[in-house]
Amino acid sequence: MKIQPRVGIVMGSDSDWKIMNQSAASLDELGVSYEVRVISAHRLPDETIQYGRQAAGRGLAVIIAGAGGAAALPGMLAAVTELPVIGVPVALAQLDGLDSLLSIAQMPRGVPVATVAVNGAFNAGLLAGRIIAAGQGRQSDAVRAALADFRASQAAAVAAKETRLLEQI
Amino acid sequence: MKIQPRVGIVMGSDSDWKIMNQSAASLDELGVSYEVRVISAHRLPDETIQYGRQAAGRGLAVIIAGAGGAAALPGMLAAVTELPVIGVPVALAQLDGLDSLLSIAQMPRGVPVATVAVNGAFNAGLLAGRIIAAGQGRQSDAVRAALADFRASQAAAVAAKETRLLEQI
Amino acid sequence: MKIQPRVGIVMGSDSDWKIMNQSAASLDELGVSYEVRVISAHRLPDETIQYGRQAAGRGLAVIIAGAGGAAALPGMLAAVTELPVIGVPVALAQLDGLDSLLSIAQMPRGVPVATVAVNGAFNAGLLAGRIIAAGQGRQSDAVRAALADFRASQAAAVAAKETRLLEQI
Amino acid sequence: MKIQPRVGIVMGSDSDWKIMNQSAASLDELGVSYEVRVISAHRLPDETIQYGRQAAGRGLAVIIAGAGGAAALPGMLAAVTELPVIGVPVALAQLDGLDSLLSIAQMPRGVPVATVAVNGAFNAGLLAGRIIAAGQGRQSDAVRAALADFRASQAAAVAAKETRLLEQI
Amino acid sequence: MKIQPRVGIVMGSDSDWKIMNQSAASLDELGVSYEVRVISAHRLPDETIQYGRQAAGRGLAVIIAGAGGAAALPGMLAAVTELPVIGVPVALAQLDGLDSLLSIAQMPRGVPVATVAVNGAFNAGLLAGRIIAAGQGRQSDAVRAALADFRASQAAAVAAKETRLLEQI
Amino acid sequence: MKIQPRVGIVMGSDSDWKIMNQSAASLDELGVSYEVRVISAHRLPDETIQYGRQAAGRGLAVIIAGAGGAAALPGMLAAVTELPVIGVPVALAQLDGLDSLLSIAQMPRGVPVATVAVNGAFNAGLLAGRIIAAGQGRQSDAVRAALADFRASQAAAVAAKETRLLEQI
Amino acid sequence: MKIQPRVGIVMGSDSDWKIMNQSAASLDELGVSYEVRVISAHRLPDETIQYGRQAAGRGLAVIIAGAGGAAALPGMLAAVTELPVIGVPVALAQLDGLDSLLSIAQMPRGVPVATVAVNGAFNAGLLAGRIIAAGQGRQSDAVRAALADFRASQAAAVAAKETRLLEQI
Amino acid sequence: MKIQPRVGIVMGSDSDWKIMNQSAASLDELGVSYEVRVISAHRLPDETIQYGRQAAGRGLAVIIAGAGGAAALPGMLAAVTELPVIGVPVALAQLDGLDSLLSIAQMPRGVPVATVAVNGAFNAGLLAGRIIAAGQGRQSDAVRAALADFRASQAAAVAAKETRLLEQI
Repeated sequence: MKIQPRVGIVMGSDSDWKIMNQSAASLDELGVSYEVRVISAHRLPDETIQYGRQAAGRGLAVIIAGAGGAAALPGMLAAVTELPVIGVPVALAQLDGLDSLLSIAQMPRGVPVATVAVNGAFNAGLLAGRIIAAGQGRQSDAVRAALADFRASQAAAVAAKETRLLEQI
Repeated sequence: MKIQPRVGIVMGSDSDWKIMNQSAASLDELGVSYEVRVISAHRLPDETIQYGRQAAGRGLAVIIAGAGGAAALPGMLAAVTELPVIGVPVALAQLDGLDSLLSIAQMPRGVPVATVAVNGAFNAGLLAGRIIAAGQGRQSDAVRAALADFRASQAAAVAAKETRLLEQI
Repeated sequence: MKIQPRVGIVMGSDSDWKIMNQSAASLDELGVSYEVRVISAHRLPDETIQYGRQAAGRGLAVIIAGAGGAAALPGMLAAVTELPVIGVPVALAQLDGLDSLLSIAQMPRGVPVATVAVNGAFNAGLLAGRIIAAGQGRQSDAVRAALADFRASQAAAVAAKETRLLEQI
Repeated sequence: MKIQPRVGIVMGSDSDWKIMNQSAASLDELGVSYEVRVISAHRLPDETIQYGRQAAGRGLAVIIAGAGGAAALPGMLAAVTELPVIGVPVALAQLDGLDSLLSIAQMPRGVPVATVAVNGAFNAGLLAGRIIAAGQGRQSDAVRAALADFRASQAAAVAAKETRLLEQI
Repeated sequence: MKIQPRVGIVMGSDSDWKIMNQSAASLDELGVSYEVRVISAHRLPDETIQYGRQAAGRGLAVIIAGAGGAAALPGMLAAVTELPVIGVPVALAQLDGLDSLLSIAQMPRGVPVATVAVNGAFNAGLLAGRIIAAGQGRQSDAVRAALADFRASQAAAVAAKETRLLEQI
Repeated sequence: MKIQPRVGIVMGSDSDWKIMNQSAASLDELGVSYEVRVISAHRLPDETIQYGRQAAGRGLAVIIAGAGGAAALPGMLAAVTELPVIGVPVALAQLDGLDSLLSIAQMPRGVPVATVAVNGAFNAGLLAGRIIAAGQGRQSDAVRAALADFRASQAAAVAAKETRLLEQI
Repeated sequence: MKIQPRVGIVMGSDSDWKIMNQSAASLDELGVSYEVRVISAHRLPDETIQYGRQAAGRGLAVIIAGAGGAAALPGMLAAVTELPVIGVPVALAQLDGLDSLLSIAQMPRGVPVATVAVNGAFNAGLLAGRIIAAGQGRQSDAVRAALADFRASQAAAVAAKETRLLEQI
Repeated sequence: MKIQPRVGIVMGSDSDWKIMNQSAASLDELGVSYEVRVISAHRLPDETIQYGRQAAGRGLAVIIAGAGGAAALPGMLAAVTELPVIGVPVALAQLDGLDSLLSIAQMPRGVPVATVAVNGAFNAGLLAGRIIAAGQGRQSDAVRAALADFRASQAAAVAAKETRLLEQI
């Protein structure tokens, strides 16, 4: 973790970390600082609201919130901040994350959440990077360059994997 | 509406009233007093939490909360009260209420919501009545008797409808 | 199990106990007495109806019924008692409990069942506790206090888990 | 309706008749006698069980039961008779009958229900006819012949419709 | 397997036997004779149609057909016989049998299939027994008695399992 | 319709024509000759099999088969011909074509069907055109050119619609 | 439309405008400039890629892409730009937008799309506003203030609607 | 792999090879030459479009494209070639391939993709063979004969498996 976080990675339960650590991984890849919090909308509602309310003032630019089932966390954070909130639907043991996806994506008119794929925490980090890069200034430029590098490296990785596959078959 | 409400009927949007008025109808049937509120977890989070926190102290015994889509209202109320909270999944224009149902039913361990059918607001009122009737004292006895009457009357109604149908065919 | 049960935990098959024991666990947590029964609506219909009819007279305040697939047990019990009935959709090997959830939640107008999450037996116990606590008298007060304690303890548990997680990463 | 019914057409609500009259139509087509009843598992549980228990003794060979949502009627009848029970999943206003289908088809081991398509009441009548025709004796022979005639007539109908269509285009 | 089979158990692939052997098990329980065939509507269409056409003449009273995915076997058999055809939706590795269930249950008007639960082969055997028992004569009486015995034994089994469970907890 | 058809458009019911006429429309667009037939796998199984068996010999290159619900037609045709068979899932009044889609797409290993979108009959015609264009000879060249023209024209249409839209807003 | 657009609203078909105009409405509400384009990934792939590649250079900060069914547009744009791309799943006549939602939300690791609700174009505009507001400088400040105003106004609107509703009932 | 490939097997990720190798297996069975490529619409968009554009000129007759989740690959290839494109929905860890199936099957009017079953790569190869066999000339004749042989062999295999099964039981 790094000083002066720009992104808050929050999750409803510490068991979500096995998925949500991928958000940290992609932010590390982009050189974007972040903090990690376990905050449950249903078990710590005051802390959730306080976290959302203070996020912008503390210098965060984006919040990534992962939750499963009746996943209220992303939406409740979005309700109390003007920051963009990215929701990661974490799959529970049953229903393959369909409940999580619908609970996060189907937000009512007026309170947007940026939903990624079921268990798509890595992309959530990349999306946070894109949002930061969409701004102006040196940090945005740096993240934009890192995003371009990442994109180039994954294109190269696909090509390399193709070569390796074709050698095997 | 009646003095000294025992049940709070809340909904995320006034457009939910076309469904949620059925909770009022069944509570009227049982002679249970209620109040009606439009409170949105996503648009009025503080008021939602305050409403939940004060509900027991104001004499409410049960909260009925209707919402559609990413329906956080019932769960957020359940997070801040010890009262039983009944969730009514209201169907939006798309997805037939499956999103609403999953968003309300799939609550995490520790914070229960009593979910009824999609658009099942009438049964939510009956369930509130059953909860009040499960207590002790004169009011409980009265509601229990009203529930028994209602059950008898609907059994009679089925029989009457059968007679009418058999006359027609 | 305790003397003078206030809650009946019933299930369609003894194989459901691996899920339904969580209802017992949360009722133990709240100090609410309960009894456990295996009663199948489809294999023991008379016993099911008799159980439902006698439940109130035997002093029960709530019935928790767990069942999977075409899960008729909660609804059939609700059909023959004025007590609140909580339905726990138990997931079968296929379909992840979607069949169980819809079979329990989608009750017809007039006969309410309080549905919890797929395999959500722990919350069913908490909900039974909330229903008992919604009444009046010493027992209600005690359960209400236990619910508040439980809520505080799980809030603390989230915070503790956060601390532990942040130490690890 | 005819004297000495061999098939019982039952439904949970008189509003199901707009679908269930198709069972009567196909039984008429086959010359099979039937009776029509409105019996709700959830609103008239005793009558439901009594109807199921007496069905065989009253000379019925098959029961057709239509219901929607948490559709317990076919299963509860199957629980109290040795007669074959055919379940017709009637679609409610929401969810397109998926709830009805799963509530009827997903019966537990030991209590079979013969499920047909959502709103497939016409086929339920034909299936009842096939069941009667699978027995022995004059009535079975007559129904078997009627089934063969029906099959021939619908094959001819397809051909006729093709001719008409090809003339139009 | 027994001489003079009354029920044909057919399946689209020998890999379905791990499910379909349960139809044999329940027919054994009822003392109903059966034959087993692997016949694929898509890989052996002529044999499928021939099997269906000859089934009644060979003395079969019921056909049980198990298949997975785009499961055409039950419907194609029903298309060429007047016998009742029971369809068993066998779950494939993906989609939990939802595809199999819809492919079998959603038959068009005019050609009925009696669908049981996903992987519900045991109930398919019981349903075949009920159909045979719905006829007249000594065999029907014997199967009806066996069905009643089975029903009693499974009721007793539930009670026994309850006793065992209550001893353990 | 044109002489010497290269494509057979078949459907299970004449009511499917309101969808399937779009296959004719796209084949007209490409100048590909076709014939139209109403053939039901479940109501005319022999004719279905005969049609499939004779299709190649009669000069057809592709079969387009539309059907709804438990849609066996495309698969049964694919079972008896080496021609490519395109399946069009036609939506019924319930379930939005999900049953039709799964019944057509989920074919077992060994018998392929080329499935298009729910009600996607227009694309079925285009796909038939692509298949014909994939061969060699003058006809293939002509259809390939028509496909290229169609592609260009629809690209132009998108641009034109954009212009019109931008003028309106 | 305004000069120097910061947001590109693109859609696969001009028929999507009936939904996508809501993105324009919310951007108007926030005072954010935008442009509107009809660009189809499947019908105008080169233009789609070119649009995505040039977007950042032309000064856009965010792209909002609406599409239905197999909705490739948002993902293909995200593949060729570092800008954040917001995907709006537009519901087709069948399947209620479930196909559109999954086609947009379930993006592979490495290429994020910010998905909103089915037909959730209004929220897409708000989300674009939040992204712009997350940057620095005068425009960001202005949009952030507009977002706060919007949030306050919709909170007030809920309260006003409640008042009106309570007067009516 | 063979010289002068007629079929291109492409996939979005080398991890799809565990499914897509079955396309190679069936093409081997038919003696149809093929090439294998790893090309990601989202990670290598230019290469994807170039591959599609050059496919016909390089002598390919069919493209088989496998992808999972928001599976844009088959559709993007179909957008830039007149060749028939077969889409294989590869199941991800969650949602059982339903997302992949809908993302591939639900293509918009004008751009067809021939979709096979979830993980149905073997059938994709057979379908490619049928398309090639639908043409004229020696190669088409050879593939048609191989398809007929395959069909005969799998019919024989079903019969052999039946024999083996009947010996075991």
